[in-house]
Amino acid sequence: MLLTRKAEFSASHVCANPALDDAENRRIYGAASNPNGHGHNYVVEVTVEGDADPVTGMVFDLRELKEILNREVIEPMDHRFLNREVAPFDRVVPTTENLAMEIWRRLRPAIERDHARLKNVRLYETADLFVDYGGER
Amino acid sequence: MLLTRKAEFSASHVCANPALDDAENRRIYGAASNPNGHGHNYVVEVTVEGDADPVTGMVFDLRELKEILNREVIEPMDHRFLNREVAPFDRVVPTTENLAMEIWRRLRPAIERDHARLKNVRLYETADLFVDYGGER
Amino acid sequence: MLLTRKAEFSASHVCANPALDDAENRRIYGAASNPNGHGHNYVVEVTVEGDADPVTGMVFDLRELKEILNREVIEPMDHRFLNREVAPFDRVVPTTENLAMEIWRRLRPAIERDHARLKNVRLYETADLFVDYGGER
Amino acid sequence: MLLTRKAEFSASHVCANPALDDAENRRIYGAASNPNGHGHNYVVEVTVEGDADPVTGMVFDLRELKEILNREVIEPMDHRFLNREVAPFDRVVPTTENLAMEIWRRLRPAIERDHARLKNVRLYETADLFVDYGGER
Amino acid sequence: MLLTRKAEFSASHVCANPALDDAENRRIYGAASNPNGHGHNYVVEVTVEGDADPVTGMVFDLRELKEILNREVIEPMDHRFLNREVAPFDRVVPTTENLAMEIWRRLRPAIERDHARLKNVRLYETADLFVDYGGER
Amino acid sequence: MLLTRKAEFSASHVCANPALDDAENRRIYGAASNPNGHGHNYVVEVTVEGDADPVTGMVFDLRELKEILNREVIEPMDHRFLNREVAPFDRVVPTTENLAMEIWRRLRPAIERDHARLKNVRLYETADLFVDYGGER
Repeated sequence: MLLTRKAEFSASHVCANPALDDAENRRIYGAASNPNGHGHNYVVEVTVEGDADPVTGMVFDLRELKEILNREVIEPMDHRFLNREVAPFDRVVPTTENLAMEIWRRLRPAIERDHARLKNVRLYETADLFVDYGGER
Repeated sequence: MLLTRKAEFSASHVCANPALDDAENRRIYGAASNPNGHGHNYVVEVTVEGDADPVTGMVFDLRELKEILNREVIEPMDHRFLNREVAPFDRVVPTTENLAMEIWRRLRPAIERDHARLKNVRLYETADLFVDYGGER
Repeated sequence: MLLTRKAEFSASHVCANPALDDAENRRIYGAASNPNGHGHNYVVEVTVEGDADPVTGMVFDLRELKEILNREVIEPMDHRFLNREVAPFDRVVPTTENLAMEIWRRLRPAIERDHARLKNVRLYETADLFVDYGGER
Repeated sequence: MLLTRKAEFSASHVCANPALDDAENRRIYGAASNPNGHGHNYVVEVTVEGDADPVTGMVFDLRELKEILNREVIEPMDHRFLNREVAPFDRVVPTTENLAMEIWRRLRPAIERDHARLKNVRLYETADLFVDYGGER
Repeated sequence: MLLTRKAEFSASHVCANPALDDAENRRIYGAASNPNGHGHNYVVEVTVEGDADPVTGMVFDLRELKEILNREVIEPMDHRFLNREVAPFDRVVPTTENLAMEIWRRLRPAIERDHARLKNVRLYETADLFVDYGGER
Repeated sequence: MLLTRKAEFSASHVCANPALDDAENRRIYGAASNPNGHGHNYVVEVTVEGDADPVTGMVFDLRELKEILNREVIEPMDHRFLNREVAPFDRVVPTTENLAMEIWRRLRPAIERDHARLKNVRLYETADLFVDYGGER
């Protein structure tokens, strides 16, 4: 059984690798490498795997899941410039892929327990583009 | 090859385990334990797995799939108070998890045949919360 | 200039006029007259009309608008059985039309001030059905 | 007859009036006043009013409308930090209201002609918040 | 008070005026003039204006509105090639504009009565393009 | 890590197997067998599997993925009557299942390389019906 909760945050970012020069970043990321940054309404879907508890009928407490999402992802990232204000994006390019992995790393210790595993993080950058990350296998 | 069909029904429910007292139910389910009930526009996505038939090019007859969904899920659950009118929710808490499992149990015998297996039931309680159930493994 | 904010609440209701008998209610409202009730994820869109303030560039303070919506509509109606728990629906049929008018009555005194008028309340009962109410003209 | 075309762009902005101090901007705009900026996937809906041409059956040439939208709005604003790169937002607070008015000003001369009037600009900052601007009356 | 109901139908069409030659049609309509046709999932939103009836609390009987929509629009147009099978599109170009006007003409006599007026027909050709038609003024 | 990109095209089709007679096609496909054809706004989601590149932080170049989708799927299929203009649908029934498999066949050689595999093609015929194809296993 999988339980998925969706949340949204608005942030800005620059897609540029600080180890590369401007021309190279422009070649790789196009307009997304504009150093002033641009932004998105990111939508994150967090999927927890587990069995429904025989007493409560729930895989995970919904309010606790919402609190974890708020504390670990929404509060530190909402209304932020990721490259300047959210580690490790001062040195890691905040592509959708890297951002999904960072959300995974932040959520996993807060969610995983005897009966529940973090199964997937889906991150939409726009309605037409999203990534899924399920951890190292 | 997976084929998925979506349908919607409007129902009400109370999240409370009759074996527990009111205070305990309130602690577990919060406002959802209000004994008068509250409601949702549930969205169900039924996924059938099979090969496309070489003659028809279809995994499953679409009109039959719609009829099965209507007969097994929409008609008995739409415009109903689940705890009072739809078994087994007189004794099982109708969380999204338990409701998805019940939909699975109702659909599976009607859908599964030589070439087709019920693969997944996804049930949205709201746009921001859904579960996936794929049966016992 | 119009500013619109959207919010959602989950409630249940019965469409039946207490002044009519069961057969008549059944004839008028169909399955929606089921006395046990059924539910919806209602989506409400509140539209405020005004000029953008020359200093703030805003028609209305967004956080205050959210607080008003929460206090006047979401908190009293979310997770409720409208006919039993939310006045005046103990005596008024909670059709989408009547519910939109009640939301209008609750919001108007909290929103209207020198520079801002409540322009419209749109209420979705499902994705396929909604009403707009703009007050008595 | 109204014809509406939708487009999307991703930009970042800071909600702060340069004439006010930081504390005052923080009080008015909250987290949106973060000077590093944050971003959105803005969705713009442009509505043109006119009669369907008796020969073509169209209110406005759809491809030309798309080109105008791209040239006047999407290209100059997509992947930009509005306050730093798009006039007049170096001195005007880029609230959704002010941004909708600027889009109106840019589109109007390109769209209006004998048979067509710009009727409305709707701008979504998020799925839950949008403004409509129809010009000075 | 406005009541809006949404419905969907899948049809194909060619955008070409039979009074013009192929090159001219290609110039005006581009790829949409391909004589083999192409198709859309059209979404139609029908808006009825009236007061909520004091007894029923409804502007219009919802099931009757659905039946009218089905009978006048969905059944004759769904799964059809508009130019060949739905009058007057054998001689009128089925642009979104002309199709919305034809839907208006078909719905108006069935909907209008003492207390109810057809207020608007909105027709989406795609999610990014729609027209609104409210009749001759 | 999975990366998914969405695109849309408008096409028409007839669901009928040329090896069967009209009555048989009508029995199998219903209204979808209308020989004049009908249409859809198809939505395709292409999922690529790979590791995020340590330098670019990307699974696949987003602009190249968009170009591949345009070149292999959108350009040859958009505004087309599939049965008449897009091989192999002159002899293969263009059900959603068969269309998803054809899209898979067209995309795979263009996408697969050392570090990237085509993982899934999801094709929506309408908002309520879609198929997923992941290739022969």
